[in-house]
Amino acid sequence: MRRIKLTVAYDGTNYCGWQVQPNGITVQETLNAALSDLFGCEMNTIGASRTDAGVHALGNVAVFDTETRMPADKVAFALNTRLPEDIRIQRSEEVPMEFHPRFTETVKTYEYRILNRTFCDPTRRLYAAFWYGNLNVEAMGEAAGYLVGPHDFKSFSTENPDVTDTVRTIYETKVWKEEDMIHFSITGNGFLYHMVRIIAGTLLEVGKGSYPPEQIPEILKARDRAKAGPTARAQGLTLVRIIYPRWEKTAKNVKKTVDIPECV
Amino acid sequence: MRRIKLTVAYDGTNYCGWQVQPNGITVQETLNAALSDLFGCEMNTIGASRTDAGVHALGNVAVFDTETRMPADKVAFALNTRLPEDIRIQRSEEVPMEFHPRFTETVKTYEYRILNRTFCDPTRRLYAAFWYGNLNVEAMGEAAGYLVGPHDFKSFSTENPDVTDTVRTIYETKVWKEEDMIHFSITGNGFLYHMVRIIAGTLLEVGKGSYPPEQIPEILKARDRAKAGPTARAQGLTLVRIIYPRWEKTAKNVKKTVDIPECV
Repeated sequence: MRRIKLTVAYDGTNYCGWQVQPNGITVQETLNAALSDLFGCEMNTIGASRTDAGVHALGNVAVFDTETRMPADKVAFALNTRLPEDIRIQRSEEVPMEFHPRFTETVKTYEYRILNRTFCDPTRRLYAAFWYGNLNVEAMGEAAGYLVGPHDFKSFSTENPDVTDTVRTIYETKVWKEEDMIHFSITGNGFLYHMVRIIAGTLLEVGKGSYPPEQIPEILKARDRAKAGPTARAQGLTLVRIIYPRWEKTAKNVKKTVDIPECV
Repeated sequence: MRRIKLTVAYDGTNYCGWQVQPNGITVQETLNAALSDLFGCEMNTIGASRTDAGVHALGNVAVFDTETRMPADKVAFALNTRLPEDIRIQRSEEVPMEFHPRFTETVKTYEYRILNRTFCDPTRRLYAAFWYGNLNVEAMGEAAGYLVGPHDFKSFSTENPDVTDTVRTIYETKVWKEEDMIHFSITGNGFLYHMVRIIAGTLLEVGKGSYPPEQIPEILKARDRAKAGPTARAQGLTLVRIIYPRWEKTAKNVKKTVDIPECV
């Protein structure tokens, strides 16, 4: 048996999120169907991040187990011909059987984008939230800076009965503007349910001047969802990459016949 | 009677092009319907550029005539609430009745984009063509340079019985790469049917090494569609802006109550 790791990019617009669920088509079930078609038997994947409906990904991660002798790097090519064009495998590689995409130490990076101009640009509406008014980008960056470090992010999450430990560590946040697009990127060891979208919604409020950046530490301290801003729209969010620090070295030892560039 | 000029942006993905036609929904008919709803009577527009099915626009231009007393700049706001989210008016302003968006001297800029990476990025697939192989961007830029000036572009157009004069003047071409996206922009006084897409398809062939940049002058000279490259896919093309050099000054004299920034 071999374990194959897939780096998966998708446009979340037409999916009810990542995880298989009864109401509506998901990315994972579409991926499972393509794998089943490729190998001629029922296949299942284990995913790293259960992104919400409408959220995009450039580098989500999934693994599956197989007896196939197909070179690991060829799986990406074979799968892509069986997937709809809004899902594309960016890389496929063999990993040790012990590698688990969710129960392994990770460094995840998300990006949230806000299109900021008088009228929306329809060609970018699906991959950004939109705000027509003035936004103080500097204040947003300052607010984001308060999130770095280990913090209890209970205020910035939607209640999830399965999760009791709401402490996460944020390694880096960045807010920058390129022409009419405001980008917010956040890197951490894990994220609670809706966490990035609630943070983005809160930064938007700071940008509008609803409250100052210095209020972020108080919101953190309150451990109360009601103190943070609204949950920003799903379409502005992209899961950019997931790094597994402990496994990256191991992966380098796995034979690759083609050097496929790492997903952006 | 007053004439109102609209700067129209749209995502062409779900439209059968600009112009009203019997088979399928077009941008113009959707715009006419929104105008008719706004003014409570049947309204029609005259458009500047009849973009093909699937082609996008940031700054197409249309005019309509009305007796309304609504301030010209408010029309954009009122129309946008009646339009689907893949069409957004970027600006509305009063122009003299003699202004005709098509039978007036123009400077038009189009941009063609090619996403160039091993596997397609689904979140950018709708607004770019895709090519996985190596492309020589420098050669593409050199090839594009041969198009500048007045030339007979018959080789770079699909036969159109209504058009006999196939000479157009290109003022500027640019080819550049930003990360994994190749951009090709072209500015000229007019474009023949499919002209930008055939040029883009030809530049793609130059990029692949199918023929050298120096072949462009020979293709122009041949006046034979068969000598040029294939017509590149519609989704990579965006009509960026249309400038009316003779009218721009006049427009500045028209009273505007809100200063709406020019579309990108």
